[in-house]
Amino acid sequence: MAAEIVNPRSDSNTDEEPFDPAFALHRGGKMAIQATVPVRDRDDLSLAYTPGVAKVCSAIAEKPELVHDYTWKSQVVAVVTDGTAVLGLGDIGPEASLPVMEGKAILFKQFGGVDAVPIALGTTDTDEIVDTVVRLAPSFGGVNLEDISAPRCFEIERRLQEKLDIPIFHDDQHGTAVVTLAALRNAAKLTDRALGQLRAVISGAGAAGVAIAKILIEAGIGDVAVCDRKGIVSADREDLTDVKRELAGFTNKGGLTGSLESALEGADVFIGVSGGTVAEEAVAKMAKDCLIFAMANPNPEIHPDVAHKYAAVVATGRSDYPNQINNVLAFPGIFAGALQVRASKITEGMKLAAAEALAAVVADELSADTVIPSPFDERVAPAVTAAVAAAARAEGVARR
Amino acid sequence: MAAEIVNPRSDSNTDEEPFDPAFALHRGGKMAIQATVPVRDRDDLSLAYTPGVAKVCSAIAEKPELVHDYTWKSQVVAVVTDGTAVLGLGDIGPEASLPVMEGKAILFKQFGGVDAVPIALGTTDTDEIVDTVVRLAPSFGGVNLEDISAPRCFEIERRLQEKLDIPIFHDDQHGTAVVTLAALRNAAKLTDRALGQLRAVISGAGAAGVAIAKILIEAGIGDVAVCDRKGIVSADREDLTDVKRELAGFTNKGGLTGSLESALEGADVFIGVSGGTVAEEAVAKMAKDCLIFAMANPNPEIHPDVAHKYAAVVATGRSDYPNQINNVLAFPGIFAGALQVRASKITEGMKLAAAEALAAVVADELSADTVIPSPFDERVAPAVTAAVAAAARAEGVARR
Repeated sequence: MAAEIVNPRSDSNTDEEPFDPAFALHRGGKMAIQATVPVRDRDDLSLAYTPGVAKVCSAIAEKPELVHDYTWKSQVVAVVTDGTAVLGLGDIGPEASLPVMEGKAILFKQFGGVDAVPIALGTTDTDEIVDTVVRLAPSFGGVNLEDISAPRCFEIERRLQEKLDIPIFHDDQHGTAVVTLAALRNAAKLTDRALGQLRAVISGAGAAGVAIAKILIEAGIGDVAVCDRKGIVSADREDLTDVKRELAGFTNKGGLTGSLESALEGADVFIGVSGGTVAEEAVAKMAKDCLIFAMANPNPEIHPDVAHKYAAVVATGRSDYPNQINNVLAFPGIFAGALQVRASKITEGMKLAAAEALAAVVADELSADTVIPSPFDERVAPAVTAAVAAAARAEGVARR
Repeated sequence: MAAEIVNPRSDSNTDEEPFDPAFALHRGGKMAIQATVPVRDRDDLSLAYTPGVAKVCSAIAEKPELVHDYTWKSQVVAVVTDGTAVLGLGDIGPEASLPVMEGKAILFKQFGGVDAVPIALGTTDTDEIVDTVVRLAPSFGGVNLEDISAPRCFEIERRLQEKLDIPIFHDDQHGTAVVTLAALRNAAKLTDRALGQLRAVISGAGAAGVAIAKILIEAGIGDVAVCDRKGIVSADREDLTDVKRELAGFTNKGGLTGSLESALEGADVFIGVSGGTVAEEAVAKMAKDCLIFAMANPNPEIHPDVAHKYAAVVATGRSDYPNQINNVLAFPGIFAGALQVRASKITEGMKLAAAEALAAVVADELSADTVIPSPFDERVAPAVTAAVAAAARAEGVARR
């Protein structure tokens, strides 16, 4: 009733504001809470608050699963970060990460109909992050981990998945992996190759690189070699972290050693999630009609103009080139589907189903510039949602 | 875009739903997230999310106070509970408390224009609650503690106030205290007595009783005796908790000992925040034209029909009697005012100012049935907001 009077957003400090449309748009934040029931009079108040609410509380106390029916829990996801790996900016802290988390939250709503709350934590300690999220869990239907640096992100996700029976999903890993696989499926189809025939090289062994390697192997790709700054991740290296050692165990069947450039010789697929630059000479040595996904932002590892000289399909992370590998194609539908059936987790099968559904959206309109739908393709979220919900049921993790 | 398709709220389980309008209203929860900026096309996305958002993040990383300008932080309050003292239901756990926290959140929005997020924690350990809220603090402009049982609520609030520089406010204590003081101010005025002349008896030494005793003393009331189940809290008792011992130090100047009934002899004011019943014989011995605030819900400690035989003014916690002592008259404006000026805390002066402003709303229309405004009086929130913001500035805790 008094919102227009007391809302601090109506204030302005324009003398301090840098002259930039992004700053103007961000003033006061990008999101708000909305009541979905009326509170206009005493009758409303006596249903939505005391005394009426007491009956609902008692019912949930008696039969805990009713919390999903009578609160927003099953509809709301915590977007949790510690601000250590924000965009390309790195460790900028929780407060400075909030604009990204709010952005994520409004994309959840806009594209998936999922409510999401930014939770930027004032700790970077793995144990503390795990403990905190476990304590928050009663209020949320799922947790989207975001912009937490590797290798902590792997342990945090694993431990939360062990402790909690709601979906825990590190989007920097799995969102990227799902969209990459979808694009690769369509690119292979377009160039008339089976996934099993493809040999891929991934540049980057962080959150995205590791997850992409895993999902490509699960999807049946021929072979994957992952490269970090020191070259190909191979079992003979003695400088590997636990995660990279695990990676070495299920990738690189060809037993390659050496540099990224050497790995690229004859490779069918390049997937860049590293930053850095790949020399044109190395690109020139890839297989004929190769597939190049150079996803670093804002500067792709291989410039699209160079990539197009050698590749049949080129994808990037940028919105101003065709085939943008954008996580927004995945996470809203994945969570919407998981929440819809009250899944206890997001399984590998659900991610693979999401990638297949996403690829299928443009199956009838495939071209070198359309191996993945636009982020604004309205068919995407419903298709992913339905596929993920069905996969959750098939895998026995759905609770309704 | 796809919200109507994938929103789980559109599902219904009506065969399970008890036949009750409160359950029907609560289905799917009472709140949602709303984007306040458009995300319709690539241009929107490039401002609200990458790449535009990176500039905003970098600016905050460089100048941390900009988080207040460019995110919803300064506009959003965490409503934090552990589910241990919910309404009259007691320790029902975090999930079962969520309908109350959602109710609180929508009242924040409706009455104060303040966004609020329910955070029901999966721990009742004092240290863990404090640690968790400290880690959440970067994302929120303030913390409303709610329905946490005494005496833990006192320590949790105190420690959070020491550790954090945002408003921490346990509404069960201070919201109730502010509204009670406002009503008492007007009741004294109506019956032509100064606060300094009044002797009050408070039944209940939990969160509300302790806070009411403190604010009445600060406001200059003559004397206050607080009674728990064992009688008057007095310095000679050897069974007192730390909080009650502190209480004994600044209340009961008259040095009363004995039962609640004995304390009521000749008392000017009864304030009930305990449940239980007071016998009519004891009420009959109070001072002539006494003031009776019997706030237990749903059964006032003294039934209004009985109270009216002896009292000049009767107030309750119920919406179906005049003079409802309802916290919604206080907390939305208190937080709106504190957030408006980015107060680092909510001081005693800000609470006293809130009570004065609340009392002043009905100063020109005082009657025995109108010592406090209706919860739906649209003058309330703006008046409280302005008074709290001004008091924060006067006390030097405002940061703009």
